[in-house]
Amino acid sequence: MASAMNFNAMPVFKRSIDSPANSHNENGGAARRKPPTSYDVAKVAGVSQSAVSRAFSQGASISKKTRAAVMEAAGALDYRPNAIARSLIRRRSDIVGLVMADLTNPFYPEVLVKFTEQLQAIGKRVLLFTVPPNHSIDDTLPQVLQYQVGGVVITSATMSSAMAEICQRFNVPVVLFNRSVAVDSVSAVCCDNSSGAKAIVDFFIARGRRRLGFLSGDTDASTNIEREAGFRRRAAEHGIHAIETVAGGFSYEGGYKAALEIMARRPRPDALFAANDVMALGALDALRYQLGLDVPKDVAVIGFDDISAAAWPSYKLTTFRQPIDRMVAETIRVLGEEIEGEDRGGRTIQIAGRLIERGSA
Amino acid sequence: MASAMNFNAMPVFKRSIDSPANSHNENGGAARRKPPTSYDVAKVAGVSQSAVSRAFSQGASISKKTRAAVMEAAGALDYRPNAIARSLIRRRSDIVGLVMADLTNPFYPEVLVKFTEQLQAIGKRVLLFTVPPNHSIDDTLPQVLQYQVGGVVITSATMSSAMAEICQRFNVPVVLFNRSVAVDSVSAVCCDNSSGAKAIVDFFIARGRRRLGFLSGDTDASTNIEREAGFRRRAAEHGIHAIETVAGGFSYEGGYKAALEIMARRPRPDALFAANDVMALGALDALRYQLGLDVPKDVAVIGFDDISAAAWPSYKLTTFRQPIDRMVAETIRVLGEEIEGEDRGGRTIQIAGRLIERGSA
Repeated sequence: MASAMNFNAMPVFKRSIDSPANSHNENGGAARRKPPTSYDVAKVAGVSQSAVSRAFSQGASISKKTRAAVMEAAGALDYRPNAIARSLIRRRSDIVGLVMADLTNPFYPEVLVKFTEQLQAIGKRVLLFTVPPNHSIDDTLPQVLQYQVGGVVITSATMSSAMAEICQRFNVPVVLFNRSVAVDSVSAVCCDNSSGAKAIVDFFIARGRRRLGFLSGDTDASTNIEREAGFRRRAAEHGIHAIETVAGGFSYEGGYKAALEIMARRPRPDALFAANDVMALGALDALRYQLGLDVPKDVAVIGFDDISAAAWPSYKLTTFRQPIDRMVAETIRVLGEEIEGEDRGGRTIQIAGRLIERGSA
Repeated sequence: MASAMNFNAMPVFKRSIDSPANSHNENGGAARRKPPTSYDVAKVAGVSQSAVSRAFSQGASISKKTRAAVMEAAGALDYRPNAIARSLIRRRSDIVGLVMADLTNPFYPEVLVKFTEQLQAIGKRVLLFTVPPNHSIDDTLPQVLQYQVGGVVITSATMSSAMAEICQRFNVPVVLFNRSVAVDSVSAVCCDNSSGAKAIVDFFIARGRRRLGFLSGDTDASTNIEREAGFRRRAAEHGIHAIETVAGGFSYEGGYKAALEIMARRPRPDALFAANDVMALGALDALRYQLGLDVPKDVAVIGFDDISAAAWPSYKLTTFRQPIDRMVAETIRVLGEEIEGEDRGGRTIQIAGRLIERGSA
């Protein structure tokens, strides 16, 4: 099969990026076949060059018939459009590195889908990295930097200041999603966790609950720290200083076990705030099916996130909704500004969420 | 800030791919700064060149101290390793395009995580594409072809034979995950849906259930077609020919509504097979909380997939488990062979699953 592009000959490589076909072959070698351009494809398909571009784009205005003609001509000519080569030449990459640390929590697949959809809608692509168990983001970032990414979004994890400096030197902007800043130069977008926790305390207190318990996530995560601090601060304002706390590591299983443990404490809590929804679901199952308790009569439960399953009748979880759509849009906007050089980073943007009342509290 | 690479000068671009630094500057221009190589970084960091490579790889054996020294030297020298440029030159891309059509069904985020982890473990990267609502895979694939992908995996969707031909001409192997082949030249990896459906019928019959109902997914999806055909065939072998069927579109909400509709039919089913788990969860909630029925006493429910939530005590869903790990590993193996040119495609690989008995049937 004839190769679409000869990568040993860099001028050929360069020329393939949609400049009109040159009728001379400077290399002269029979072995070197000049790659076709979009103009060649347009000619064969009997369409304009812009129709060729549109045929390879999503959402572009193009008829099925025209696209089919372009694809057929492209196939016949061995034409291969090359977005990566184009971005190398323009020094602008439309690839965003998305580094995700915790995809077992169903909140993050929902976040991932939003990022992919929103980035794709503006012509960007997602190069996805997960942080394997027992690895840190600092282990993963050097690999991300090897790709021609225009910027990086990190979800559910933070980075060392040393690594932030490296990214800055590499001129790759990084925005943290759902983690507040550990490093001055790095921007972050998150929900207003503190206000969320405050609203949850007020909700419990208004319903006569005084024996508050907290199921914490990863104790060093900024989201957990902010939610716990906000919860304790507001409880103290209501005169409540003793709050039972058990760590559940942000997982369903962790929430299940933490609920069993916290309900063995005395005085037994009558209201539990779980630092995320999937822990709250685990807690609900433990309370109902292992301890035989009535939720919310015996103990009220509130989560944080509003994942899809929170609304399912088996759970009817009262929770504090993170506005994922807006948080993702804001993250993309901030990253875009930093890629364009309009802003040098270091912003923390908090977006307000809201309490969704269902049956569990 | 000095740019790490001068993309207007292709020889410079080429030279940056880790050949030892050339002490002459052929270009001679003051504006053109020669990009540093891994050898330069090694020299400054006082380590071997191989340590520089390892510092940018995940899972490679390297001490924190050595990596820190390399990253510091790389930062100071403005060294930017470039995996994409390397793959362009080698004509081998380590990027796999992953096209996902249905990420709202929680089975697919689980699949995505497995693909990302398993590909990452062998040094490959995932460039993720979602198919937006009202778009077809044929709309999305032309974009995927613009990137220097070594191969493409398509989950939960199939493609036209015209598009399969285009991909072949572009020399980009495509493997379908969880859809059987619509096109001769394209390989596919899926669960043995027919045997799964058969096992489910046998399970119901052995427990005295005779009034079978089927909650179907997307009626044109191969998984749905195979599961329904297997279900009907086996039921017929047991002398059962009338099977109530309502479409639920593979979603939670669809399963919820379909369960209400199917239970209004007469004779009322006493056993429901939902073509995937998330529909089964919706059905369970509808049966229990809207119709007030006892599951499994009044009606037994079995799903297909074994997503995480199936095991949660609120659902205890009996289901047919798809062996995701093995299916993903097999897909990656098949794709790898086709990328290497060892196989020209057209294989369909079915992997056996197994029935997981819980409380719902």
